[in-house]
Amino acid sequence: MDVYERSLQLHEEWAGKLSTEPKCPLQTREDLSLAYTPGVAEPCRRIADQPEAAYTYTQKGNTIAVVSDGSAVLGLGNIGALAAMPVMEGKAVLFKSFGGVNAVPICLDTQDTDEIVETVIRIAPAFGGINLEDISAPRCFEIERRLNEALDIPIFHDDQHGTAIVVLAGIINSLKLTGKKKEACRVVINGAGAAGIAIAKLLLTYGFTNITLCASRGILHSGYERLNWMQKEMLAVTNPDNRSGKLADAMEGADIFIGVSAPNTVTQDMVRSMNPDAILFAMANPTPEIMPDEAIAAGARIVGTGRSDFPNQVNNVIAFPGIFKGALEGRASIITEEMKLAAARAIAGLISDDELSETCILPEPFDPRLADVVSQAVKAHIR
Amino acid sequence: MDVYERSLQLHEEWAGKLSTEPKCPLQTREDLSLAYTPGVAEPCRRIADQPEAAYTYTQKGNTIAVVSDGSAVLGLGNIGALAAMPVMEGKAVLFKSFGGVNAVPICLDTQDTDEIVETVIRIAPAFGGINLEDISAPRCFEIERRLNEALDIPIFHDDQHGTAIVVLAGIINSLKLTGKKKEACRVVINGAGAAGIAIAKLLLTYGFTNITLCASRGILHSGYERLNWMQKEMLAVTNPDNRSGKLADAMEGADIFIGVSAPNTVTQDMVRSMNPDAILFAMANPTPEIMPDEAIAAGARIVGTGRSDFPNQVNNVIAFPGIFKGALEGRASIITEEMKLAAARAIAGLISDDELSETCILPEPFDPRLADVVSQAVKAHIR
Repeated sequence: MDVYERSLQLHEEWAGKLSTEPKCPLQTREDLSLAYTPGVAEPCRRIADQPEAAYTYTQKGNTIAVVSDGSAVLGLGNIGALAAMPVMEGKAVLFKSFGGVNAVPICLDTQDTDEIVETVIRIAPAFGGINLEDISAPRCFEIERRLNEALDIPIFHDDQHGTAIVVLAGIINSLKLTGKKKEACRVVINGAGAAGIAIAKLLLTYGFTNITLCASRGILHSGYERLNWMQKEMLAVTNPDNRSGKLADAMEGADIFIGVSAPNTVTQDMVRSMNPDAILFAMANPTPEIMPDEAIAAGARIVGTGRSDFPNQVNNVIAFPGIFKGALEGRASIITEEMKLAAARAIAGLISDDELSETCILPEPFDPRLADVVSQAVKAHIR
Repeated sequence: MDVYERSLQLHEEWAGKLSTEPKCPLQTREDLSLAYTPGVAEPCRRIADQPEAAYTYTQKGNTIAVVSDGSAVLGLGNIGALAAMPVMEGKAVLFKSFGGVNAVPICLDTQDTDEIVETVIRIAPAFGGINLEDISAPRCFEIERRLNEALDIPIFHDDQHGTAIVVLAGIINSLKLTGKKKEACRVVINGAGAAGIAIAKLLLTYGFTNITLCASRGILHSGYERLNWMQKEMLAVTNPDNRSGKLADAMEGADIFIGVSAPNTVTQDMVRSMNPDAILFAMANPTPEIMPDEAIAAGARIVGTGRSDFPNQVNNVIAFPGIFKGALEGRASIITEEMKLAAARAIAGLISDDELSETCILPEPFDPRLADVVSQAVKAHIR
């Protein structure tokens, strides 16, 4: 049985990957009078008087919603709300297992931006944060922005920012290893959707200055047809030389390649055309843009992928549990660029100088220090 | 410390009464590949092909949402979504503790009927049922009806139907004890909101024919001003003699009084004016319409209240966990009148002839047989 068949069988046994478990005893009439009526009226009254008290007396301080519309699920595409549930349950399980954060999967039976925004606003009282998941670009950008404006709890689109944080962490350590300087590096990002754009933005915030975004028809430039509004916005801050051409043209003389695109889109010749000590994060799943051994054979120095069976796994689970753990503990009202940078630095910092090598630039997803280190970094940067 | 102060203190310790706990292991990379990517893609694909498979591979088959807009919370009134959370968490805890049903509290930041309906429809994919809670009348009637029309999962407004089922169970045993016949009984219900109207409807379905609804200004009749649409509808099936007057007028010659109204609204004189072997359910909380000892002294034979410190506690928790346990296990798409009647009969049937007495007409809320007996009754009547 392959991993898919085994997973299917296990999902049938589990019949849902989450259980809602009482934290309060309910053995006696007295228990009932304290957890429920009449006693429960008192915390209700306190919150009615003072909304902030919800963080003291309810789950709000330690519970988030994992919200999807099922429009861009894994590599499966737009499979809809119901079919997205196994992923959202899995995500909720990861939040609890790795970060100690209670998470409730919410799959929305609408893919209309306005409706998603208003629905999340309406269900927000029960939650201390919203993790957006698997919502297609460019709708995800607008949904996140509008929710951030409307709500005073942190909103985090993991496909964007979780990916970007872990990529930056890996890049920080790759620069250290290769001696490259961020200001002097040419970076190529293949894939101009949610992840690619978020990675570009965070790398710019970190101090990279020369980033070129590519999509399926090549380099994003002013003549590229059918750019969405966010891709157009990105033109103003990327591709400083206004290059055009194919991905191969972009990669010539580049220092860093980041792929959030499609299998086998990068050839050995493209790697050979990069600068010495090239760094490649080939994160297409399950088949990367180029296999690590091929990239190394063509002269790459550091290769990361999304896979657990190769070194340097770039996995969001390194970041997102700690991000929300910190945001909830520090009662952040928003997750800022500073918090994301701090998280990336903290993740990179878990690899000591002794450990750092071409095959060890990122901590393992199961590193038990992760959630605390990331959450501390996030908390330290709450405004 | 009284029950309110102790409850407040405990709510602070609990910091939320629910925990979302993983049902799947997450210790190894292999665990991760089965509960999450890449394995999770397979149950997603199956559900995308066959929506019914969500009941096999996700939480949908054993998880409900407890939805409120905070408009009619306990005796506290319209305290809003955030302040309603302690009650909804408590309700969710009861669902799990008594019925084994996972329940997620959802408090809606809107009290607009259309918005509530559309929001619940949008979040429905993750849930196998919706328990509406503490939504004020008459909005609750329309919201429940429209959700039943729009969704193929069971909708249950516990304040209405949970109360009605437990009241009917108590009445069934009271009739047995007193030898009264349902067709010959005059029933007075004081309180024409969600609970009072649902009780009237279920008693009519059961076979009572003479029911008079009263509200704060007396008997509901054709000349009563400012009736809402549902109260007007009820006029067609209640108050067959088109009586008018005060509650005292209604109670003269009545066999059964059911109070879901306000403290101390019933006097001993009113009880004295009832027929022999009078049955009173005085369920105003925490102070009943009349105290049991006063009612008994005035000639009542059976008295129930909402309180745990008197005999015959009429408590919704007797019904709702088993209702949803049965509805989910039998994959009901709706909770019908037949299922409610069956639940009431099953609850009444738990009191054996030997046990049945004036102070024992209903099982204890902690009776371990309840959830199974109610769920079996519900399942047996799924169409």
